Amino acid sequence: MNFRSGIISKSKPLSLEEVEVAPPKAHEVRIKIVATAVCHTDAYTLSGADPEGCFPVILGHEGAGIVESVGEGVTKVKPGKKISYKFSVCLESVTLLQGKGLMPDGTSRFTCKGKQIYHFMGTSTFSEYTVVADISVAKIDAAAPLDKVCLLGCGISTGYGAAVNTAKVEPGSTCAVFGLGGVGLAVIMGCKIAGASRIIGIDLNKDKYAKAKEFGATECISPQDFKKPIQEVLVEMTDGGVDYSFECIGNVGVMRAALEACHKGWGVSVIVGVAAAGQEIATRPFQLVTGRTWKGTAFGGWKSIDNVPKLVTDYMSKKIKVDEFVTHTLPFDKINEAFELMHTGKR
Amino acid sequence: MNFRSGIISKSKPLSLEEVEVAPPKAHEVRIKIVATAVCHTDAYTLSGADPEGCFPVILGHEGAGIVESVGEGVTKVKPGKKISYKFSVCLESVTLLQGKGLMPDGTSRFTCKGKQIYHFMGTSTFSEYTVVADISVAKIDAAAPLDKVCLLGCGISTGYGAAVNTAKVEPGSTCAVFGLGGVGLAVIMGCKIAGASRIIGIDLNKDKYAKAKEFGATECISPQDFKKPIQEVLVEMTDGGVDYSFECIGNVGVMRAALEACHKGWGVSVIVGVAAAGQEIATRPFQLVTGRTWKGTAFGGWKSIDNVPKLVTDYMSKKIKVDEFVTHTLPFDKINEAFELMHTGKR
Ligand SMILES: NC(=O)c1ccc[n+]([C@@H]2O[C@H](COP(=O)([O-])OP(=O)(O)OC[C@H]3O[C@@H](n4cnc5c(N)ncnc54)[C@H](O)[C@@H]3O)[C@@H](O)[C@H]2O)c1
Ligand SMILES: NC(=O)c1ccc[n+]([C@@H]2O[C@H](COP(=O)([O-])OP(=O)(O)OC[C@H]3O[C@@H](n4cnc5c(N)ncnc54)[C@H](O)[C@@H]3O)[C@@H](O)[C@H]2O)c1
Repeated sequence: MNFRSGIISKSKPLSLEEVEVAPPKAHEVRIKIVATAVCHTDAYTLSGADPEGCFPVILGHEGAGIVESVGEGVTKVKPGKKISYKFSVCLESVTLLQGKGLMPDGTSRFTCKGKQIYHFMGTSTFSEYTVVADISVAKIDAAAPLDKVCLLGCGISTGYGAAVNTAKVEPGSTCAVFGLGGVGLAVIMGCKIAGASRIIGIDLNKDKYAKAKEFGATECISPQDFKKPIQEVLVEMTDGGVDYSFECIGNVGVMRAALEACHKGWGVSVIVGVAAAGQEIATRPFQLVTGRTWKGTAFGGWKSIDNVPKLVTDYMSKKIKVDEFVTHTLPFDKINEAFELMHTGKR
Repeated sequence: MNFRSGIISKSKPLSLEEVEVAPPKAHEVRIKIVATAVCHTDAYTLSGADPEGCFPVILGHEGAGIVESVGEGVTKVKPGKKISYKFSVCLESVTLLQGKGLMPDGTSRFTCKGKQIYHFMGTSTFSEYTVVADISVAKIDAAAPLDKVCLLGCGISTGYGAAVNTAKVEPGSTCAVFGLGGVGLAVIMGCKIAGASRIIGIDLNKDKYAKAKEFGATECISPQDFKKPIQEVLVEMTDGGVDYSFECIGNVGVMRAALEACHKGWGVSVIVGVAAAGQEIATRPFQLVTGRTWKGTAFGGWKSIDNVPKLVTDYMSKKIKVDEFVTHTLPFDKINEAFELMHTGKR
């Protein structure tokens, strides 16, 4: 069968090509993608900077769709019934499981003009159809709007989970969120739901402050407005440091600042941003010996197969926001425009 | 009153001098020291390398004794009755509270030949008599042997608490303990009491292995016996990494190895060792993003005032070992010999 896919082969931008998508093998599922989000992780691989990137590849890892057919041994989902089964995945852990750009059996389901195309993160959602391992598939509420819940496949769930699962923010606490992109906003949402009483947003771009406050930030500051390092500013503002801090940028210098902005004795700092390959974080061990904790999060600590359906339910019951994160909805063939919008950060 | 004290004034070794110990002011307690331990933190300041060291000073921070007199407003302890009130303190937090080498009111209680002598860590146990803030005093079981329980003032409690309070080791888990000195042995004891099923001791000095196994290590290895970095050796030995690791040396390179020896997804590494001033720890943020946690501990997470008496009770009821940590008992005027024994690591 030939479908359209966004393929990259070491050259930006993505090119839309006719691709043959092989039927699912045992424990695999072929899915008709209805909606996909674009994420910095896609852009990172697209840029060629990812040392683990394999090309040519079909990117995309935040998608939702309908099961088209299933391979042998798949019991979790069934094909057919209109949008009665859907999926929504992100899951870096699947990448770790599956190794580089191929299905668990070491082969690809994508061919374009006779040439094998790599999978991405076990998902490859930038395609009309994709094949994924059944363990990567989450069956969600049949009534959920796929163009919204596809976002639960990565950024929103990551940020929300960083606050409620990884940091376990407690009621009445003070939080600092570095970086007010989609992930940072989701962290703010999580802190607010967890009952934080003070949420300080930090971003160089002041255009981000209005939305951050809508999501629950109680104040927003820019490191450029101070002569001192931002960690010292925060320690002073909060009489000793924050209870929880989150790095949602991918900058190792900010990761250090986020840790050092925490209160000694109990402060917890969570790294959410993904730094460029080879970069290292550093601090004086005294920062940890005096009682700070340094953590990180992949997909917000959710186990996507079990948790994504629950997140979808939380969205449907209005416990968590999703619509507010959607800034633009574009047709599939405008995917390169979507990447540009992400880079400029326009809302 | 004139008493004997071990004083340093920027020159090793310690010199024993007649010292005047002023009476306790409000909320202070004057104590007759019965026993004190020597610790690497004392040696570190003694070496002149501690940037916060003030000289001349009376060192010592692991001591036990009898209350001699109390200042105004002290209700916690009373003087008199033979060893019915004792104390045992360590507590870096007191240092932090009190600033550099002086009592909370900014003055000293020690004078030698008319010259003011600094306090150390709010304790200064290398003295026949010392004055401490009442908040640093813990009232312990009147039957406890002071020459043993003085050790609960620092190293043993630190290592034990690093395992049970900071890491919260769980039954059945696998632990790696880097450094098999007194602190490392106490960590092993804590891991064993917490129910760890595998405890790997790591030390360059193989003379330490027998005692480590007595305390609960299931195997001991030396980094020098392998060509690969020790973290890779441990990841292989444990099929993915340990659940908990502890750095009990004070070496920033080993701190990194200890973190990287942890299992992704849940491994927790605790820094117990104190690195030289200015040194930094580093790693790739990916180590944390993939689910490892980096922590540290000061005094094992015990709040000494509340917890030391409980630790003494645990010792009296044989839940925790203390006698086994005592390698030598020396009279006070052999204190320089005690430092030498600590440096050579002889048992
Ligand atoms: N750990 C995970 O599982 C996971 C999942 C999804 C995304 N991520 C990562 O999270 C990070 C954030 O993603 P996003 O989509 O929100 O990105 P984004 O680009 O939309 O937001 C980043 C924000 O940081 C701000 N910023 C940049 N440098 C700054 C600095 N030095 N100080 C203060 N603010 C600064 C920018 O102005 C921007 O608003 C990325 O690194 C992404 O790769 C991680
Ligand atoms: N965090 C706290 O509250 C606290 C409290 C007390 C002590 N400490 C610190 O804990 C550390 C340990 O104290 P201790 O009294 O057990 O020290 P110790 O010197 O008795 O033990 C250290 C051990 O590490 C071994 N070692 C040294 N370099 C090594 C290497 N590269 N690889 C493997 N093994 C190596 C030595 O052979 C020795 O057996 C010190 O840094 C001390 O300052 C911290």
